[in-house]
Amino acid sequence: MTKRIPIVENILSANDQMAARNRDVFEKSGVYAINIMASPGAGKTSVILKTLETLKGRLQLGVIEGDLATSIDTEKALAAGMPAVQINTGGDCHLDAVMISQVLPSLPLSELDLVIVENVGNLVCPANFQLGTHVNVLIASIPEGDDKPYKYPGMYKGVQALIINKIDLLPYVPFNMDYFRQGVEILNPGVVTFPVSAKTGEGMQAWTDWLLAQVKARD
Amino acid sequence: MTKRIPIVENILSANDQMAARNRDVFEKSGVYAINIMASPGAGKTSVILKTLETLKGRLQLGVIEGDLATSIDTEKALAAGMPAVQINTGGDCHLDAVMISQVLPSLPLSELDLVIVENVGNLVCPANFQLGTHVNVLIASIPEGDDKPYKYPGMYKGVQALIINKIDLLPYVPFNMDYFRQGVEILNPGVVTFPVSAKTGEGMQAWTDWLLAQVKARD
Repeated sequence: MTKRIPIVENILSANDQMAARNRDVFEKSGVYAINIMASPGAGKTSVILKTLETLKGRLQLGVIEGDLATSIDTEKALAAGMPAVQINTGGDCHLDAVMISQVLPSLPLSELDLVIVENVGNLVCPANFQLGTHVNVLIASIPEGDDKPYKYPGMYKGVQALIINKIDLLPYVPFNMDYFRQGVEILNPGVVTFPVSAKTGEGMQAWTDWLLAQVKARD
Repeated sequence: MTKRIPIVENILSANDQMAARNRDVFEKSGVYAINIMASPGAGKTSVILKTLETLKGRLQLGVIEGDLATSIDTEKALAAGMPAVQINTGGDCHLDAVMISQVLPSLPLSELDLVIVENVGNLVCPANFQLGTHVNVLIASIPEGDDKPYKYPGMYKGVQALIINKIDLLPYVPFNMDYFRQGVEILNPGVVTFPVSAKTGEGMQAWTDWLLAQVKARD
């Protein structure tokens, strides 16, 4: 059995410095920012679009979309009437604080209450790079299976909220919710959790209520 | 819009040297080897177990399981009666040729016909590291969505076969197969494709027939 511990301390501390600067920019503009991470296809964009729909009229939102390639998600956000900016990482498997700092001037921050960053779809790399947002949120999804907390502990450890998406598929796939939650509890005791279906809207109210409370608590 | 092209040429060439050595070990033992890559939860382990079930008695199989943590998948393979070895990468987001070379002595290669390597669940990093296997296989899955070829082009470009898993979920999720296949065709024209359900067994015969033909062609 091979175990390798990558040593990336210098990279992280440079990134953390830039993340602190980003946080400062958010704070000065009165913006609450969240970093959404997930596997490819867990439904990050769908959850974000549903979140915007639910919070429309109550909060001014902006979006930063991260992908290796394409601007598919930014086009969806713009079509939904939100200020949005795309980061194409080329081959990089995660966003970092420098990329965020480069696109912040493209958003009308002084007019916004909440910025949602959609990270690259990946359950490994994004966990190692703070962006300067106020919270990290993980979206798990039912068809991914119930063993993901055990297999990707770094990601599950490092988040302040967990959305469990695609609960409408529970009748069609094997997923033991108790086993899943047990894994989460070991890694991240008491983390706030929202079972939702971005497709049907089920559970979205609890998530957006929580999010709204976080934003308001900073006013 | 930020574009970053990571320069990793030296790492890759060191890795490629080790991959060539692994290939040599496989060849000398008369083993055909495949590297299976996919998002977390696309069904790599389920497809592998179903493949083994279908090929039992016709081929001797062994498995190398890659995960950040746990030996869940190796336990499943061992329970199915196969020689199996686990690589825990710690925090690394992909397997590399060195890791493979370290575990090869743990498999009874001279008794095997086919070794299946299950890479870390990730649609980005594993594409950049050849392992020394004869082919790279990608498993896409229906609930991930039809835009994945466009968003993860590096992965879709670099494989010799594509399995589309969880077709049993097509009635329950939005997935435009034409749009998906169009993206695949742009990146990897003519790549051999197998729509399957590891759950119901649908389509598995075509995949295992193809695999068997690859193995036999080398005898």
